[in-house]
Parts: sequence; C-alpha cells; structure tokens
Amino acid sequence: MVGISATVADFVHAPPAMPDAVILAGRRSLINMVGTAIGGSGEAAIDKLAALLPAFSGPPTNTLIGRPERADMLWAAYINAASANIFDYDDTHIPTVIHPSAPVGPAVLALAETLASEGRPVDGRALIEAFVLGAEVTCRLGNALHPVHYARGWHITSTCGVFGAAMAAGRLLGLSPSQLVDALGHALAQGAGSVETLGTMSKSLSVGQAARGGLMAALLAADGYTGPEEPLEGKRGFLALHSDTPDYAAITGELGSRWEILNNTFKPYPCGVVLNPVIEACLALHAKGGFSTTDIMSVELTGHPLLRQRTDRPGVTSGRLAQVSAQHAVAVSLVHGRADLAAFSDKAVADTETRALGDKLTFRDDPTYALDSVQIRLLMTDGREILNVITAAKGGLGDPLSDTDLAEKFRDQIAWRRVLLDGDELIATLEELDHAIDGAVFLRKTQPAIFRE
Amino acid sequence: MVGISATVADFVHAPPAMPDAVILAGRRSLINMVGTAIGGSGEAAIDKLAALLPAFSGPPTNTLIGRPERADMLWAAYINAASANIFDYDDTHIPTVIHPSAPVGPAVLALAETLASEGRPVDGRALIEAFVLGAEVTCRLGNALHPVHYARGWHITSTCGVFGAAMAAGRLLGLSPSQLVDALGHALAQGAGSVETLGTMSKSLSVGQAARGGLMAALLAADGYTGPEEPLEGKRGFLALHSDTPDYAAITGELGSRWEILNNTFKPYPCGVVLNPVIEACLALHAKGGFSTTDIMSVELTGHPLLRQRTDRPGVTSGRLAQVSAQHAVAVSLVHGRADLAAFSDKAVADTETRALGDKLTFRDDPTYALDSVQIRLLMTDGREILNVITAAKGGLGDPLSDTDLAEKFRDQIAWRRVLLDGDELIATLEELDHAIDGAVFLRKTQPAIFRE
Repeated sequence: MVGISATVADFVHAPPAMPDAVILAGRRSLINMVGTAIGGSGEAAIDKLAALLPAFSGPPTNTLIGRPERADMLWAAYINAASANIFDYDDTHIPTVIHPSAPVGPAVLALAETLASEGRPVDGRALIEAFVLGAEVTCRLGNALHPVHYARGWHITSTCGVFGAAMAAGRLLGLSPSQLVDALGHALAQGAGSVETLGTMSKSLSVGQAARGGLMAALLAADGYTGPEEPLEGKRGFLALHSDTPDYAAITGELGSRWEILNNTFKPYPCGVVLNPVIEACLALHAKGGFSTTDIMSVELTGHPLLRQRTDRPGVTSGRLAQVSAQHAVAVSLVHGRADLAAFSDKAVADTETRALGDKLTFRDDPTYALDSVQIRLLMTDGREILNVITAAKGGLGDPLSDTDLAEKFRDQIAWRRVLLDGDELIATLEELDHAIDGAVFLRKTQPAIFRE
Repeated sequence: MVGISATVADFVHAPPAMPDAVILAGRRSLINMVGTAIGGSGEAAIDKLAALLPAFSGPPTNTLIGRPERADMLWAAYINAASANIFDYDDTHIPTVIHPSAPVGPAVLALAETLASEGRPVDGRALIEAFVLGAEVTCRLGNALHPVHYARGWHITSTCGVFGAAMAAGRLLGLSPSQLVDALGHALAQGAGSVETLGTMSKSLSVGQAARGGLMAALLAADGYTGPEEPLEGKRGFLALHSDTPDYAAITGELGSRWEILNNTFKPYPCGVVLNPVIEACLALHAKGGFSTTDIMSVELTGHPLLRQRTDRPGVTSGRLAQVSAQHAVAVSLVHGRADLAAFSDKAVADTETRALGDKLTFRDDPTYALDSVQIRLLMTDGREILNVITAAKGGLGDPLSDTDLAEKFRDQIAWRRVLLDGDELIATLEELDHAIDGAVFLRKTQPAIFRE
C-alpha cells in the first residue's frame, strides 16, 4: 500500500490534540520506565556497557539513569534503554507484547536533556506528546506484523521500537514530513533484534541500539541525510521484510482517534508479561496453603499457545533466563511465595527445590485463553488435584496497576539497586511532568551521588 | 543442525594454515577496500556522519581513511566501512554478491591500530589472516542463505558482515571458542540492513553499523558479556530468521580447505557488480561506433533474473541510485563511453540524453545466463539490430583485475577524492602488508594532511 510512510510522517509532524487520558497514560509509562531503568542500571551487562564509555563516548553531557557516570546523548539513550528493559520489568503493549517505552523513552529524554543544555528546553507536555507519538508508531508497526513477526523470531521491541524512537526524536527536533520519512529509512537500516538472544546479555544490545539508532536517524535526517521514499511499505521495506501479509490498516486506521498507549500496561512482576497470570495463580495457591510443594507430582499449565512458545524454558541457569521461564516462575512462586526481583536472581535459580519442581511442569495449549488468563493444575502424590484459574491478571488491561502500585514498584527498584535516591521526591516530580517547564530536568535526580555498600 | 556456532568459533579460534593464495587474496581485498574507502570518503553522507564525531566520539585515537579527522575505534570502523562501500565499488563475493571487505576490513584495521597504540601491534600476516577468517564467515553465512535472503530484501553485506567483523575482531583479541560464540550472539542482536535503502544515504548506516557492531561484539565478549548458545543455528537464531531452508553444509562443509576469499572479485566499474557485463557490452559498442545513440529505438538486456531484480531502476535522481540502475549504466556508457566515478555522479544523472536513452530499456530474464554474462540488443530507428554478448566480464572470476589494474583503480580513487596522498607509496606499503611488523601502520598514510581545492 502506497503512502504509509508519508501518512506516518504527517501524523508525527502535525498530530491531533491528545486527550487527557492519553497524556496520563504517556506520563505513567515514562514513570514506570524511569523506575525500571533505575532497577536495571546496576546489572553486570550495564556495567560492561558503561565500561565502554571512557574510550567510546563523546563529552559526558547526559544522564545515565541510576548510574554515577554520564555519557554523550547517543550512549545515554542506549544505556538507559538497556537498563529499562534488562529485567523485562518495563511496560507491555498488550496486543503485541512490545515494550514500547524502553526504546522510545530514553531517546526522547536524552534529546530533551541535550536541547535543554543548548538553551532550548522541551516542556513536559511536549516531551510526553513526542513520547506518545513514538510509542504509537512502535505499537502500530507491531500490530501490523503481529503475531508472525515475533513467532519468526524477531525481537519486536527492538525491531519496531527503532522506528518509534526515530519518530519521537524527530518530533522534538521539528523535522519536516519528508525528513521524518528519511528518519524512518535510517531506522530501517539500523533496526535489529532476535528472540534467540532473550534471557542473555545480548538482548540489551538490540534494545540499546534501537534507542540510539532511532535518535541518530532523526539527528541525521535533520542534517539532510536522506533515505528511501517508502521505508515502511516499499517492495523490500520494513513490512515486506517481516511479513507476507502485513496488516496495513493497523498502521493507518483510526490514526489520531485510537491511541495505542491506552493498551500499554505495567508489570507487577519482573518477568515476561505472559507469566503474570501464572505467577498470580501460584502466589494465590501458596498463600492459601494446605499442601507441601514437595508432594507435587506434576504441574500443568493451560493457556494461550504464546504462553508456551515464549516461556517453555526448563533448566534455566541464570536470573535473566528465569524471567522468561514458566518453569522457574511457577516453582519460585509456589515454593517461596514470592515473585520480586530477588526471586529472579541468579541465586534464586540455583535453588535445588525450585529446580526440581520446575522440571515437573507441562503445558497445554488452548487458543481460547486470553493472554492474561491461565489455569494451573497441581497433581499431588496422594492423588489430589489442586486447581486455580486466573481470568484477568493484575497488571493486565482488566486490572491495571494503580498510581500507588506504580509508586511502590518505583521505590522497590531503588531499593533493589541499593542506591541513595529520594524516591518520593522523584515520583512527585514525575507525577507533575506534564506541567514541567523543562521536561528533562528530573533526570539529574535519577543519578545517585552515593552508592550503598 | 546443532553445533554450527561452536564449529565456526573453533575454526576462528584455531584455523588451519592458510595457503599463500589465500593470503594473497586477502591482501588484494584489503588493498581494494582501502582504495574504495579513500574514494568514498568525501561523499556528503560521510561528511554528515563525520559531523557527529565532536559530540559522539571518544578520544580520537583512530584513522579515518581519506579524511582529516580522527575518531575513536568504533567510529573509525563505522565510517571507514561506510566510505569503503558507499559507491558499491568495493569487492564482491561472486556466489552471493556480498561485499565482505567493507564490514570486516575496517573492524580489523581499527582494532589493530588500537592494539598497536597499546604496545601490542598486530603483524601484517596476522591481520590478513583475521580478515580472511572474518570474510570466510561472512561469505559462508551468505552461501547458506543465498538467494532467498537477498530476494526477501535483506542487505546481505550488512546482515552477514556483522558476524564476520565479530569473528575477525575476536580473532585478533584472542577470544576463546565460547567467547567467540558470545560474540556471534552479540552480532545477531545488532545485525541489520535492507535492500530498500540501497541507492540512498541510509544504506551506509547498516554497513557502518555492521563493522562497528561486530567490533563491539568482540570487545564485549572479551569482557565476559555473554550471549545465547546457538546464535546461528538456534530455533530463532540467525539462520532460522532468514530462511526456511538454510543450507547448513554451506557453513561447515570443507571448512579450512575451501576458502571463500578466493571467490572474491574487484570491480572495474563503480556500480552493482551485476552491471559489469552490461557496461562492458556497452563500452565495447561505443568504442566500435557506427551508430548514433539518438537513433536507438529500444535497448533489450538479456541476463540472469537477478540482473533485473537488482538493477531495474528507471528515472533515478541521484548518482547513488544510478550505481544500481541498469537504465543509467547502459545509457551513460553508450552515450559517453565512460563508466568511472564521474559517470555515476549526480551531475551525470541529470544529463537529458542519458535519461532519454535509459527510458528505452527493457529486460529479458534468462536463468541460464551466468551473473557475469549478458546480451544487449539495440533496435535502431532504421530497423537495424546491433547485438553484443559478454560471456565473462572483466572483474569476474574468469577475468580478474590484475595487480596493475588494482593499483590503477587505487590511484583513480585518490584522484577522485582530490586529496594529496602518495598513491604509489601507499600501494607499495600495502603490497608488502603480509611482511609488516605492524599491519596497521599504513593507516596514517591514508589520512591526507592537505585537501586540494
């Protein structure tokens, strides 16, 4: 279909007025993203990326969320995106399971911080709007390719996110429609990401690259760096590359009246979102009690086929892999009654009882199940059957995290990171973001001066 | 097939002795690459990338071939790769039409330059060997996916080249086999590239990114940054992502006895390699004379379907696009009897007579034609037919460029770039590369101190 790239560019160039609910959803997504970036910023993979900075970063003009170093704008976008997504604890666009904020948010924030340092601060409302536009493009591309794209093995957060980051940054830079098309072309040239890397440090490279690549795409387009005319719909463009039957209407339909950010959700647990109902089912069984986990003969999960496809990972050997392993999630929440960051650490994975129970898991596919629902069936050695059914897990669209939940999650991230940061002040600042004169000024407050032992 | 990533890693870790012909082919590929990097280094797209350096490069430790600036190691790999490939005048691996040197060579050279500055110079032989290994992996991945991969729309030079760059850099860093597998995973996370971007500035981003990403993959792997266990053959790894029927044996078969660098060729003309026989046919007709191009009613090209698929681009509007346009190549070589860099400039594309003749081109697919053969048929207004058939174009495997041709091409690049460089001295140094104590020391000589007006 001709004109998709141009339509997207026109939309980003001159978007319709955004309803209050959209601005609110954008702000909540950013708050959640900043929180998960703090929580993830101390991981070994992030340390190793930050170790590249002395040799490979330009002047340290920008904030690394949750870290003591500073970096140039491109590296700040890269590392903040990697931090935000490393635990897969960031947000989730329900129809596609994209994490839109990790690639888009850090690109917008880094650019806004740089613009402010050049005397051109971006107000909070404009920053949120640019972010929402980037998330919109990311998620609509995902809608057009889902579910073929992810099933083939593409890490949809990165492959679609690079376009959203480009559009969000392009919006802040005031690019013309044709420059925005150029930026889409540069995103096409740079976008990558493989499901095979999930659960390993490699994953963070594609997420970081999506944020940096999108930002760089917009910067280059602003300088007259030109690209193809139809990067999305062209014969060998993004959509054709990734699906034989892309749903073009998913990109352009109801543009400006339907907002995908309203389908964005926040996780109560630091794992793949499809594990939410699984964990909730297990935590409820644990809380109820009346059985010993050592007497479990087998565990059967019934859910949408995607649940199995994305989380059937027995015998995982790291906390990172555990976050996308139903075997670990079921076992740790049944045995220990917890599903926080500590429950998905390398240490938790090494626990013998947890490992033994995980080995007893089987899946039953049922496409009639929604993604936020699941049935768990424990078969006990004495012949008993223990059943639990979750029809709308917390954190899904049917039961979203409240602002209080979000604030609690934010404070948990600071605690996990073991840094001295004033969480209450940060949250208060972020909750007023749409009224800020400089939307990026809060970033300084995410950078701890002192690290706890 | 299990074990492909491990097999590749073992091969790179402990390769068999390389025959002299392989070393020679590696050296010739590097000479050609350095030449095309000089020739391409003054393009507007490269200027715009270099304009990012003050804000986004670390300390300027490394050489940008053909340019006055210096940059950090990652940017040097990036920009030198972009320069080397920007005119598509670099080398061509015949079975796949991959340009292996652009992603691999600059990564190796930048790393060797950095190691030398740290008191660990890489001798010329080791540098060539690392390069050959990287090219080998790049081309074997291409063989496994060809022709589905490119036909789908993936820019195979970048998508496969990032793995080669990672292996070449990993070799120089002395990575262990398991670290080399990690590096393959990081390459998987970063590799991108779309055919839709060819002929535009966007293209250079994926080529630069392939060199930089591969180098970064190796650096991170050396620091214990870990990745998936089967990045190539995994269920959602590189091969599965890009083909339903990858040819696994193409990667591991005759490893160490068959060398793909021996299938690498150098272009006599600055365009897509499939245009070589087309241009040769036209130049010969022009030289022979006996007709006026204004009397041509139609031009019919008969060749392998890939010729049409890659070069059927009527009405191109830039020199860059002209390089992959049969319409322009045929017209400019028939009308003006030339096919040098000037013939594929923006200025040449604007020529009215050339444009008019290009519009008269038609294609006839014949899969029995080899890629370096073509038939051209001119139908004249007076009813005459003028025919020419090329069965093995210069620059193909059947008629490779001689060392003298390569030196001439090298000097032409310097002339086109309009910089003061001692071409003879550079060529002489490069021809002795396998005996150099520091294989990267020549890089300084590629950096002109004074630019001509």
